[in-house]
Amino acid sequence: MQSLDDTLLTPNRPHVDTRSLAECMEACAACEIACLGCADACLTETDLVALRRCIRLDLDCADICGVTMRLLARSIDGDAKLLRAVVEACARACATCGAECHLHENDHEHCRVCAEACRRCAERCGRVLRDLPDTYGGTHPPEPGNGAEIP
Amino acid sequence: MQSLDDTLLTPNRPHVDTRSLAECMEACAACEIACLGCADACLTETDLVALRRCIRLDLDCADICGVTMRLLARSIDGDAKLLRAVVEACARACATCGAECHLHENDHEHCRVCAEACRRCAERCGRVLRDLPDTYGGTHPPEPGNGAEIP
Amino acid sequence: MQSLDDTLLTPNRPHVDTRSLAECMEACAACEIACLGCADACLTETDLVALRRCIRLDLDCADICGVTMRLLARSIDGDAKLLRAVVEACARACATCGAECHLHENDHEHCRVCAEACRRCAERCGRVLRDLPDTYGGTHPPEPGNGAEIP
Amino acid sequence: MQSLDDTLLTPNRPHVDTRSLAECMEACAACEIACLGCADACLTETDLVALRRCIRLDLDCADICGVTMRLLARSIDGDAKLLRAVVEACARACATCGAECHLHENDHEHCRVCAEACRRCAERCGRVLRDLPDTYGGTHPPEPGNGAEIP
Repeated sequence: MQSLDDTLLTPNRPHVDTRSLAECMEACAACEIACLGCADACLTETDLVALRRCIRLDLDCADICGVTMRLLARSIDGDAKLLRAVVEACARACATCGAECHLHENDHEHCRVCAEACRRCAERCGRVLRDLPDTYGGTHPPEPGNGAEIP
Repeated sequence: MQSLDDTLLTPNRPHVDTRSLAECMEACAACEIACLGCADACLTETDLVALRRCIRLDLDCADICGVTMRLLARSIDGDAKLLRAVVEACARACATCGAECHLHENDHEHCRVCAEACRRCAERCGRVLRDLPDTYGGTHPPEPGNGAEIP
Repeated sequence: MQSLDDTLLTPNRPHVDTRSLAECMEACAACEIACLGCADACLTETDLVALRRCIRLDLDCADICGVTMRLLARSIDGDAKLLRAVVEACARACATCGAECHLHENDHEHCRVCAEACRRCAERCGRVLRDLPDTYGGTHPPEPGNGAEIP
Repeated sequence: MQSLDDTLLTPNRPHVDTRSLAECMEACAACEIACLGCADACLTETDLVALRRCIRLDLDCADICGVTMRLLARSIDGDAKLLRAVVEACARACATCGAECHLHENDHEHCRVCAEACRRCAERCGRVLRDLPDTYGGTHPPEPGNGAEIP
């Protein structure tokens, strides 16, 4: 995704690292694609019945990844708590979906690919969450030198 | 939306009232449409500069309403905590966007309409949240007769 | 969807009837919900294997209905040919998905409901298409008195 | 987007090159992000009024890119003509939006980035369209050796 980095050259987001954001958006898009592809491929498998929950979670996860990417793409003046809630929901959806796909990854390559995309997206969401200010304006972990790191 | 009720005649959701769900999905769709229409109409106004934050919040709110409707439309076997997190985020987005639109509603009919759609959607999300089990499987307020309402 | 009509009180669309638009957006939302609900319910059926194509088409149809509703919600200054292409694609997706659901409607109530939502949405898209100007700026059928209906 | 290629290792699409598909989905995601980011950044510019049409087209283009990516992510058993119609609409939206952004690219870096993402996405859609069978099952240009290339 060559053009992605440039898009974010001048974001109006003091707290969040530009690189973290770009990587999180990329991971959301890749995870949305992997989840939709996994659900689709599951439909053709002979053990389809065993894959019902996998399809179900894939579809929710794809939807959340899509909306998370869209919210992250807007940088000005938004509601930081809303963004935080959505990125947290995305990380949760990825963790749940990835755990289910993991159960089937020895049988199905598409589940292995999807589990990996979910793991990566959850991890990228986690990095963005670490930068986003929480309810009290603090970051986790605290930025060096802001007085929060007790000796 | 005539065909909506029928869709949900036999949901596999023990806790949530079918009527609440259908009304919440309808309210999400109506709010998504109102937010996109408001953002679009704002672009034509002479006081466009004063409406920047309104457009910004409209776009986030529309996206969240859309994904909330999609998750509510799936009834089997999902992750209840994820659903709860998304419906809460939707209620929050509607409250924030509605408050901004409310500021402009004397000047712009589309802001008045959007504020009303946001208010309604937040309220419908609230009803669904009351029925959805929380982390401990309890509902809020507790259902009568489940032993939670100690005198 | 009470607030929908008001949203569109003052659209900047000379050619398209306000009522047709509102009904088409409502039908898109109802069809998106019905398709997602049908795909979800299909996953629980004992004849799941026979429903693969139904699930597959449901998911495409839901996505197209969603984007069609979003494009219709914007009234100013858009690309009329793009809108036309998207509404045509939506009508096609609804016809294809509805025909598949129709095959299963004696066995599954959710397929019957979805087939009806698809039929309705395709029909509402057709009405909007009749009003939208085509490539040459004409409408189909021609509006009375515009000189196109010469014997 | 590391995990994207693997997802598509075994697609059930005889006509379409796996590489073309993966690149088109990546370009759709990058264009959706660029369009949303451009619309958002436009809202902060002092010449906001001159950017109205840019914002408007950005939002349509982002929506179409998103749905195109989702449809491309499903490989089995879909309606090839529907896919074709949606990819064509996406190429059109990108061309229109890119042309508008191009007008502002000397003034705004985000418009330059968005114009480039639109150009790339339109081009990737074009490659997929060349592979997708048309209404008569033919490809454009014809594959070598299928008898269509009259001497």
